[in-house]
This record gives sequence, C-alpha cells and structure tokens, in this order.
Amino acid sequence: MPNNVQTLARAPKMLPLVLALAAAAIGASRASAEPQVADFKLANGLEVVVLPDHRAPIVTHMIWYKVGAADETPGKSGLAHYLEHLMFKGTVKNPGNTFSQAVAAIGGEENAFTSSDYTGFFQRVPRDHLKEMMAFEADRMTNLVVTDAVARPELQVVLEELNMRVANNPGAQLDEQMDAALYLNHPYHRPVIGWRHEVEKLNYQDALDFYRRFYTPNNAIVVVAGDVTPDEVKADAEATYGKVAPRVQIGPRLRPTEPIQEAPRTVTLADPRVEQPYVNRYYLAPSSTTAKPGEAEALEVLANVLGDDSNSRLYKTLVLDKGIALNAGAVYSDTALDYGKFSVYAAPKPGVSLHTVEAGIDAVLADVIAHGITADELDRAKTGLIADAVYAQDNQETLARWYGAGLATGETVDQIRTWPDRVRAVTAAQVQAAARQWLDIRRSVTGYLVKSLKSEESRS
Amino acid sequence: MPNNVQTLARAPKMLPLVLALAAAAIGASRASAEPQVADFKLANGLEVVVLPDHRAPIVTHMIWYKVGAADETPGKSGLAHYLEHLMFKGTVKNPGNTFSQAVAAIGGEENAFTSSDYTGFFQRVPRDHLKEMMAFEADRMTNLVVTDAVARPELQVVLEELNMRVANNPGAQLDEQMDAALYLNHPYHRPVIGWRHEVEKLNYQDALDFYRRFYTPNNAIVVVAGDVTPDEVKADAEATYGKVAPRVQIGPRLRPTEPIQEAPRTVTLADPRVEQPYVNRYYLAPSSTTAKPGEAEALEVLANVLGDDSNSRLYKTLVLDKGIALNAGAVYSDTALDYGKFSVYAAPKPGVSLHTVEAGIDAVLADVIAHGITADELDRAKTGLIADAVYAQDNQETLARWYGAGLATGETVDQIRTWPDRVRAVTAAQVQAAARQWLDIRRSVTGYLVKSLKSEESRS
Repeated sequence: MPNNVQTLARAPKMLPLVLALAAAAIGASRASAEPQVADFKLANGLEVVVLPDHRAPIVTHMIWYKVGAADETPGKSGLAHYLEHLMFKGTVKNPGNTFSQAVAAIGGEENAFTSSDYTGFFQRVPRDHLKEMMAFEADRMTNLVVTDAVARPELQVVLEELNMRVANNPGAQLDEQMDAALYLNHPYHRPVIGWRHEVEKLNYQDALDFYRRFYTPNNAIVVVAGDVTPDEVKADAEATYGKVAPRVQIGPRLRPTEPIQEAPRTVTLADPRVEQPYVNRYYLAPSSTTAKPGEAEALEVLANVLGDDSNSRLYKTLVLDKGIALNAGAVYSDTALDYGKFSVYAAPKPGVSLHTVEAGIDAVLADVIAHGITADELDRAKTGLIADAVYAQDNQETLARWYGAGLATGETVDQIRTWPDRVRAVTAAQVQAAARQWLDIRRSVTGYLVKSLKSEESRS
Repeated sequence: MPNNVQTLARAPKMLPLVLALAAAAIGASRASAEPQVADFKLANGLEVVVLPDHRAPIVTHMIWYKVGAADETPGKSGLAHYLEHLMFKGTVKNPGNTFSQAVAAIGGEENAFTSSDYTGFFQRVPRDHLKEMMAFEADRMTNLVVTDAVARPELQVVLEELNMRVANNPGAQLDEQMDAALYLNHPYHRPVIGWRHEVEKLNYQDALDFYRRFYTPNNAIVVVAGDVTPDEVKADAEATYGKVAPRVQIGPRLRPTEPIQEAPRTVTLADPRVEQPYVNRYYLAPSSTTAKPGEAEALEVLANVLGDDSNSRLYKTLVLDKGIALNAGAVYSDTALDYGKFSVYAAPKPGVSLHTVEAGIDAVLADVIAHGITADELDRAKTGLIADAVYAQDNQETLARWYGAGLATGETVDQIRTWPDRVRAVTAAQVQAAARQWLDIRRSVTGYLVKSLKSEESRS
C-alpha cells in the first residue's frame, strides 16, 4: 500500500546493519544555504509554509496534523495510524479513492506517514495541479466518511501491515520493547503502530472521535515546496483550506512527563530467525524542541563523531582496530515534541559475544566523556553535517519533510532555517559536555537481539 | 501520620530480607473454616459484608472504594492516594478532624490505605459505636470539603511520605522501576504513591474531580467484622449509608491490557546506601480474579514450596546447601483486578556475585519446571497455607481485609470463603503446569539492587 506507508520518524525501525545509512539520512535531512521560506497563517488558524524551488515544474504539497500516537487515549494504541489509513477512504464529495485516482491520472505520487507526534499526507504533482490537491485535502480534513463498512476491512489492512512491520521483524519487536522500557511514564512508550491486541479492537467510532477532535485547520500545517510563489500558494490556500471552519479549539499539547530516571534497564529479545545478533542502546535525550541552546546541535555532532560512518570512533575502534564487530555506530533522533533519543549499537563478528562488543562501546563512550573530541573530528563532523544539509535541498520532498516535521514538533521556521549556522557554532567543549550529561547509563535501555535466550550471546 | 498509612497491597515495597515474612503474612491473610458471612446490597448499590465474631465487644468497620492508582488519568499519578489523605480533612458537618477525634475519644483505632485497585478506610471501635462510625463515613462519602486551603498543605505531607517511603529507600525505588518495566501497557506500571514530579502538581481540583467521579455508594463495599449480627448491621447501614444517593453511574473497570510479552528485561538500581545487594525477579502472572480455575491456588502452593520459609527449595538450596545466599524466597501476589505477580529473590553472601545467586535461582526454577514437586512438598504447602488461614481468622482486621480486598478486586464472597477448599484440591501436576506456564523469562523483569554500577555485582 504505497499510499499508506507509516514513517516512524522518531523511532526508526531498522536493523543496526542499516542504521549507518539511517544516520546518514538524518544528516541529509538537514538543508542549509537558507532557502527562501514564506510562513503565514490563514484566518482559520492553518499555518502555511512555502519553499520555492523553480528547477522543475513540479510541486510537493504536504499537510501535517499536529497529532500522533502519543496523543491517543490509553488502551487505543494505533488509532492515529488507523485514521491515517481511513483518510484514503473517501468523502461525500470525493467518494472511494477518487483523490488517489486523480493523483495517479496526472502522473503524481502520494504518500502518508504517522509518528508519535504528527500525521502527514503528501502529493507530488505537476505545478498546475496544486490548487486541486489543496481542494482534495481541505475536503477530507472535514468531510471524511467514516463508517463501519469502510473501517472494518481497513482494520485488516492495518493488522497485515503490523504483521509485516513488527511480527515478521524481531529487530522491530526489540525496538518496541526498548521504547516501552525507555519511557517510564511518557506515551512515547507505546508503539506508533499500536499493540496488536488493542489495534484489533479499534473501530470506526474510535477513528471518528479522534478525527473530530484533532483534524481541524487550527491544528495543521501545510508545506508546499516547488515551482510556485508564496503569493500563488496563499491565493490557492485561501480558496480551498480557507473555507474550512475550525472544528474545535486546540489546547497546548501536555503529556505525562518522565520521572528522574535512576536505573539502567536491559531488554533481551530472542527469536530463532535472528542470524546476526546485535546490541543497541537508547539514551533518553532532549529533542531539538526541548534542548537548551546548542545542546541538540552538540548531540548531532557527537553522534556524527561516534558513529556516522567508517571514519567514526565506534566503527574504527570496534570494526577496524579491535576486529570484534561487523558494524557499529550512533544515531541522534532529535525531531520530537518531548524527548529525543541517542542510540549506539554494534553487531559482533561471529564468535564474539554481545558482552564483548558492549564493553567495546562503553570504552569508546568513556573516552569521549573523559577526553572529548579532537579539533579535527569537530571540523569533519560539521563539514559532513552541513554538506549533507546542502545535498538535502536537492530533494524537494526531503526539504518539505524537514520543515513539516520540525514545525509539527514545536520548532520554528527560524530554528529550522538556521540549523547549519547553529551546527557551525558548536565547540568541542559543548560536545564533551553533552556526552557527559546525556550518555548517562541510568537513563538508558540496552537491547540485545539474540537467536535464543539460552545461547551464549544472551549472557551479556 | 498513623491514620494515613498507605498499604501497597499489590506491590509490597519491602526489602527481600523481609520478604520471607511478607510471604508468611500473605499466607496468613487467608482465613479458613468458612466463617458465617452475610452479604447484601442496599438500594443505592452499596455492598455490605458482615463477618460476625463475638469473642470481644468490638467491631472493625471498613469501607472500600473500588478505585485506585490504576484508575488515575495519565499525568496525575498519586491522585488516588492524595485523595485518601484529603478524606481526613473534614466535612461541612464534621469539620477538620472531628471524625478522628471521635475515634480517639472512644479508644478506637483508624487507618487508611491505597492500592492500584482500591482505596480503603477503617476504624476499630467498641461495638456500640458502629452506627456512629457509619454515619461519619457516609457523611464523608459525599460531603467532603476539598478546597485549596485544605489541600495545599496536605500535598506537602504526601510529598514527605513519598520521601520517606521511596526517596529514602533504594529497594522501594527498584520496586517502582521494576513495575514500570514489568507492565508495558497496563497502568500498574505507575507507582501507587505517584511519580514525584506529577504528585507535586496535584491540586484540590484534581482531587475533587476524582472524588466526585468515584466516591459513590454504588462503587463501595462496607465490611463489618466483630460482635454484631447481620440484622443489626443492615439496620445501621440503611439508617446511615442508605441515605446517600448514588452520585454517578459506574461502568465496568476496563483498563489497557498487556501485549504478549516476548522480551525479558532487567533493571539495575545503584545507590551508595545499599549495604546488602540482592536480585529480585517479577513474573507477570494471573491474579485470583483473572486466573483459570485452580491456577491461582497452584501458584500459591508453588510460591510456598519455592520460598515460604527455611524449608523451601530456594532457601535450602541457596542458603543451606550451596551457601551462596543469606536469604532467598518466593512470593505470589494474587489480589488484583487485572494481573498478579510471582516474585523470586535472593540476597548473596558477601563475596558472591548477583550473577551466581541468580543462576542458583534459575536452577531451582528449572528443576521444578522439569520435575515438578514431591507429594510431601505438596502436603506440607497445603497444610501450611490452610493453617495460616485458620490463624488469620483470629485477627478481625486481617479477616475483614481479606474480604474487602478480594471483593474490591473482583472476587466473590463465595470464592473468598472457599479458598481453603480450593487449596486443598490442588494437585502436584497443577503446580508443575503453573510453574511451566508462568515462570517464563519472557514475561519477567529481573531487578538488581547494588551499591554502585561499577561494582562487580552490577554485572549479572
């Protein structure tokens, strides 16, 4: 179902062997060179962001609702994602898959995604069709048909997706269990896709209530990137979205917060399908939104130095120097309303225990905490991060996602736009301070993926 | 504050060295010999249970509200317990501590307790004062004065209690963290006393809303044990509680449930105050209310065989035979609406690692799973459990608590009354089957209490 892909933006569900790629992708999601950005609000509260890009006569149109899995009522996990699916089921005016057919008919592409903090929908189409896309989205913002007849079969599709993404994937299961252990009180402890036994019980009324509560122009952001001017976008948006009355008042997004975390945790997931064991550790960290000035940028540099590629400390030490791991790295997930996450991981060579590679990781972290990073490492990390951001601009969708995800999680356009400058300003002392503060084992969960609980690897 | 003791009935907050006593107490909480029990409902929905006991002219009067910490709104942890405190702050008719003074004036005793599932209040007084106690309780069921002026200073008292019970006690902190890790989705993952940062923000309006939502005769059970007849109790109850109109309709208590648990977890709590490290493991288990017929009784026998006293397998093997532990045991916590908990623990001798004693526990459990228990062990366990239950009847308060806690967590009078018979019927095969099913490491959390994360003990 290409139009129903869930992008678990704040909890990438990937095996460590591809995490190095993920880290690169995260870097790449940062554009620089400060594109011209227009940002305004319609009278009904809808925020509109325009990112002009005149290289080709196409446009990427996205709508981001500021609601995600962390806003679900306890016991209804998976509801935000279920509603994302139902958004493709048609309205009174555009029944069934009229919208999707219209996108396909003009050679366009569409997709959707749900995270803990937001739910998004987008189309990439020839520029002349922007207003048409806006009209379709404005229509399904308020006129969606949600009935049992429509919702019941779609639940089977969602459950199939859950099977494919989680049940078929021991690494994804471990990620879910690690999130459940990392967040003692905050709703990020629930999987975005939901716990199966709760998803099975969702129905159209749950989805309709959720839709009515959160899908309203004053809770959404439209991002348009492409061959358009802000004035054109504004006129089209007024003529389409501007007609939608706010449905409800939206208060601040206040969720339960974490107690002081004092006790390191572990989770061991054993599955006979596991051929490559690994260890992965999550540290609770600030997000770009909650971090103190400079802190998120320092953590980004730290992740780059520790584990972005084969020049990184973890890779060099564990894979090249000691020869105990096949892969190792680090990722900082910064885009979230309430908490970020700093991850380190390693996959041992055959015959090497998880305990040994974990001790190897710990030694690398201890060294950074004790002695900081070198001037050369700092320069290389900054250059790499900023270069990635420049390349990212080349991709309209990546750029639009960067703004959409940032705004939907509480960042400002200005914060997003100045990211490369802020990375440029990071000092080695800040990186060491961030490592010292946030690589604290008491706020961590260490996950072990193993073939069997009885196998040697499980005794870390 | 002797009148504000919180009894964490379903999550005993005790150091392992006293857990053997706790296990005995849990056994002792089971009365037998089937006392004459009267059970009836008033027109307003209040359930009344009478346990006649004519040995002395005293009476124990308890009221149990079917609401506890697991019924709190996320983000408001500690609210059920906070309201328990505020219940002592007076009504319009009986301002301030009039009620407590009246109890003291007649030489009575009073107390209160909050668990995940219920909140209870009781008095033990001369028999002639029963109706007076009922009038006081009926009054504060509906006329409580909850203002900022009253509630604000009491919050300081609650925070002081939290300091005393949790902040001062590394073992209690570990228990909290273990519960948070054991329950991935169910609200039992929250501490009954609350997370400090959330308790700090509670106010009178939160308490008042909670009071109005849950404190109503149709959500309460009155238990009277002592020198009274059911007819007398009924007349007094009608004349007092019977005048209270139901405030709200109370629906079924439906809470988020656990996903299938697949991944064993660990939690390590390090504190320089720890002089005696220990390992404690929780297994998710059924409660008396959710268990299949015979299952909870079999788990009770299993806990007795594994770890009730110095004749138990864990103690004999780890302390006497191998000489690696100072203490070891097992406890089954069965009284809960949704889930029970089976615990095993051991405290190593100086110089012995936690890993070693944990391996010792695992070997004992593996043996029971593989070979079951002996006929002799079965007989001794049954005899001990039933004898404990007989002794328990001697204590009016224990007996009343047994009925109150059982009824407040979904058991019936008949189930409670027939407990000794059901224990008598347990077979060795049932005990082995229960061990095989419920001592499953995938549904467990293992906690380590250590002095320092760097110390040898922390590497389990």
